[in-house]
Amino acid sequence: MSPTPLILLADQVLTLDAAATIHTPGAVTVEGAEIRAVGPPPERPVGEIVDLRGSVLLPGLVNTHTHTPMWVFRGLTEDVPRGQWLTGRLPPLQKRLTSEDLRSGALAGCLELLQNGVTTIADRYGHMDTVATAVEASGLRAVVGHSLYDHTAEADLAVSERLLERFGTDPARSRLWAGLAPHATDTCGPNLLRRVRRLADRTGARVFIHVAQSDDEVAAVLARGVAGCASYLDDLGLLGPEVVAAHATYLSDAEADLVGSRQTAVAHCPSSNAKLEGRVAPIARMRRAGAVVGLGTDAACCNNGMDLFEEMKVAGLLNKVAADDPVAFPALDLLRAATSEAARALGIDHLAGTLEPGKRADIIAVRTRSAHLQPWHDPVANLVYTARGSDVVAVFVDGRLLVRGGRPVDLDSERILADARQAAGRLADVRA
Amino acid sequence: MSPTPLILLADQVLTLDAAATIHTPGAVTVEGAEIRAVGPPPERPVGEIVDLRGSVLLPGLVNTHTHTPMWVFRGLTEDVPRGQWLTGRLPPLQKRLTSEDLRSGALAGCLELLQNGVTTIADRYGHMDTVATAVEASGLRAVVGHSLYDHTAEADLAVSERLLERFGTDPARSRLWAGLAPHATDTCGPNLLRRVRRLADRTGARVFIHVAQSDDEVAAVLARGVAGCASYLDDLGLLGPEVVAAHATYLSDAEADLVGSRQTAVAHCPSSNAKLEGRVAPIARMRRAGAVVGLGTDAACCNNGMDLFEEMKVAGLLNKVAADDPVAFPALDLLRAATSEAARALGIDHLAGTLEPGKRADIIAVRTRSAHLQPWHDPVANLVYTARGSDVVAVFVDGRLLVRGGRPVDLDSERILADARQAAGRLADVRA
Repeated sequence: MSPTPLILLADQVLTLDAAATIHTPGAVTVEGAEIRAVGPPPERPVGEIVDLRGSVLLPGLVNTHTHTPMWVFRGLTEDVPRGQWLTGRLPPLQKRLTSEDLRSGALAGCLELLQNGVTTIADRYGHMDTVATAVEASGLRAVVGHSLYDHTAEADLAVSERLLERFGTDPARSRLWAGLAPHATDTCGPNLLRRVRRLADRTGARVFIHVAQSDDEVAAVLARGVAGCASYLDDLGLLGPEVVAAHATYLSDAEADLVGSRQTAVAHCPSSNAKLEGRVAPIARMRRAGAVVGLGTDAACCNNGMDLFEEMKVAGLLNKVAADDPVAFPALDLLRAATSEAARALGIDHLAGTLEPGKRADIIAVRTRSAHLQPWHDPVANLVYTARGSDVVAVFVDGRLLVRGGRPVDLDSERILADARQAAGRLADVRA
Repeated sequence: MSPTPLILLADQVLTLDAAATIHTPGAVTVEGAEIRAVGPPPERPVGEIVDLRGSVLLPGLVNTHTHTPMWVFRGLTEDVPRGQWLTGRLPPLQKRLTSEDLRSGALAGCLELLQNGVTTIADRYGHMDTVATAVEASGLRAVVGHSLYDHTAEADLAVSERLLERFGTDPARSRLWAGLAPHATDTCGPNLLRRVRRLADRTGARVFIHVAQSDDEVAAVLARGVAGCASYLDDLGLLGPEVVAAHATYLSDAEADLVGSRQTAVAHCPSSNAKLEGRVAPIARMRRAGAVVGLGTDAACCNNGMDLFEEMKVAGLLNKVAADDPVAFPALDLLRAATSEAARALGIDHLAGTLEPGKRADIIAVRTRSAHLQPWHDPVANLVYTARGSDVVAVFVDGRLLVRGGRPVDLDSERILADARQAAGRLADVRA
C-alpha cells in the first residue's frame, strides 16, 4: 500500500531545476520519501494538504563541510593569530573530550543545522563511529567520514572500514552513508593517501580532504618537493569529481587551475577562511577551470554559526571583493552553491538539491511575511541576502517532517542542548 | 511623582562600558527614561521586576547609516555592474514614489530595525519632512537629515531648516533630532557645502555626507582639481568629529589618513560596500589615524538586510581579509562599533551606547538558549559571530518597551507591512 501523498501548498516554489523554475503559488506533492509532482497547486488535490502558505518552498540546503561535534568548542577559539588555530588552540580542547561528549555536541550541531534549513551534511571528525549515531538520529541526510592521520593511520583506517561496511557508500541506498576522510595534505603522507585511493576504488567511497587550509599546510607539502597541495593530490590520483576538497584557500593560480581542470568538488567555507585565516579561496578561478563548488559552514567554532543562508551572503560579499567586481558570484549562483551545486559536489544531484519529481523529498519552507523579507520583489536575492536560518519554519527530509514552526518535531531540543552544554562545560577552564 | 522603577533581570548584562564589565547574572534598574543602576541582581529589589532570564542584556544597537524609505526597493537593484547602481538603477525607481509611499517604506524599515535590536539610527533621504514622522512614530531614537543636492539646493535647504527648527539638534533634548545631510562630495559643490558649514555652525547640527562611495564620485571630485574627496571636504571645514562620513570606500592612503587625523566619524557599511562596489573601505588605516568608526547597514536594497548583528560579523570577516590577518578587528571592537563607538560617532555617547547609570534606557535582550547560541563560552564572540536580529526578544528605548517576545508592542506590524508592500508594488514593473 502506498502512503497517502502529502500536498505542500505554498505562496511560491523555487525548484532550482536547470531552468530555475518558480511557481507562484506552488505545490509539491510528496509520496513517501519522494517528490511526485512540482507545479502550480493542483485543482483537485488527492492527498493530505499541508498548508505552508505564507512561505516559499525550496530544496533543503546542502552543507558540504561540517564537523558537528565541534559545536562544543564554539567561542573558545576567538581572534587567534594565523598559524596557531589548528595546531595550537584546538589540540588542548580536543584531548579533553570523550567520544560521548562529542556525540552530545554532534547532536546539538545537527539540531542547529536542521533548524537552519540544512537537510544534507558532509560531516567529518574523529570518533566518527560514535558521532555517526548522533548524525543518524538527527534525521539529517549525511555522508560521514572518520578523519585519517598518518600518526594514527591503522586505527583510523579500521574505523573507516567499519563505517563503510556499516553504512555503505551509496547515497541512493540509505540516508546516512560513509566516505573516506583523510585529514589534510600535510597530515597525510603518500602511503596513507595511496591506501585511501585503493579503498575508495574498492568501495566506491568519495574522498573528503582539507586542502591548503593554512599556509603551514602548504609549507609542509612544498617541503615534500611537490608543486603544491593540489599537485600532491593529483599525483596520487586524488583530484577529480569524486574528491571533495575543503577550503582550497592557499592555492597558486596554477594549483587552482589544476583543481578545476580535474572537475574536483570544492567545499567553499568563506566565513571560516576569512575568520581563521583572513583569506578568500580562489573560487572564481577554480569554477572557471571546471570545479564544482558547494558551500560549507565548517564547524561552529570556525564561523561561528552553521547557517547556510548567512553563508550564501558571506560568500557573495567576499567573492565580490576578491574579484573587485560587484557582479561576481551573482545571487542565483550563490543559491545554487547551497543547493543544486552543493548536491553535485557531494555526488547526490540525482537525489537532492532541486525540487523535481523522482528526487527525495528534502524540502524546506521559509516564512516570507517578516519585515526583513518584504517586499518580495526578488525571491532569489531575498533568500540569499536577507533570509536567515531562523526564517525556516518547516523542514522535510525523505518526506518526513523534522521541523515544524521552526522547532524540531521529534528531537528533544531541551535535553539535547543540556547534554551538549554539559560536555562543553568541561572545557571552560581551557579557555585562553 | 517619580515612576516605579523597572528592574530587568537577566542571565548576563554586558555593559560595554570602558572596562567592558559583564555581570553574570545581572540586572539593570530603569527609572523613567534613564538607567539608574547596573550590576548583579539586587538582593531587595524595589520596583517592578521584568524577568528576562534566558537572555543577556546589552546596549541597544546604534546604526550609523540608514535610508529607511528605501525598504521598498529591496530586491530591485541586484547584481548591478559597478557605476550603474546609484546613477543608473536607482533614479527610475525613486521618481516613481510619492512622499507617502516613502513614509510607508520608512515605517516598515523602522519596524525591521527595531525587531533586529537597533535602538538608534542616523537616517537620511529625500522627503525627510514626511519620512521623519514615520521614524518618530516608530519609537526609535534617531537623527534625521534631508538630502541636499546642488540641483535642488534651495528647496533642500528650506526642508533642512524646517527640520532643524522642528526637531532641534540636541540629542539630549528629544528622541528625534535633526542633522544636515549634504548628499555626497560629487553632488554637492563648494557653494552648497559652505552654506551647510555655516548652517551647522549656527545651529550646532552634525553633518552627514556620503564620501567616496563610488569611483565615479572620486573621479568627479578629482576633476575639480583637488587631491580627493577627503581633501575637498577638509578644505571646506567638513572633516572632524562632528562630521559623519558614510562609506569612505575609495580613498587613497593619504586621504584615509586625513579622514582619521581630523577624528572624523566614519559610518562603515561593509555589506553595502562589498555588494554594490566589490570593495572594503580602508577602516583599519582610518581607525589607526584617529577616526571614530561605527557600523551602518545602509539601505535595505544595498545589503539587503538591516541587521547590525550580521553587519558586525560581515565587518569582521571583510576587514580580516582586507588586513590579511585573522586578528584584525577583534570581536570586542566589532561589538563596540555597533554600540559604544557608534554612539560616539553620532555624538550621543553621553546618552547611549553603553549600559551605565545616568544614560538613557536603550536596552535590548538577546535570547541565548537556542542551539545556535550555545554553548555560551564567549558572550562577545557569540553576539558578534552567531547571534542574529531574530534572537532579540526585548527592546527598550528611553525605558519604553517597544519589542516584547520579538514582536512590536505598539506598532501594528500587519498594517505597516501591508501599506509598505502596497507602495513597493508600484515598482514591480520597473524591475530590470
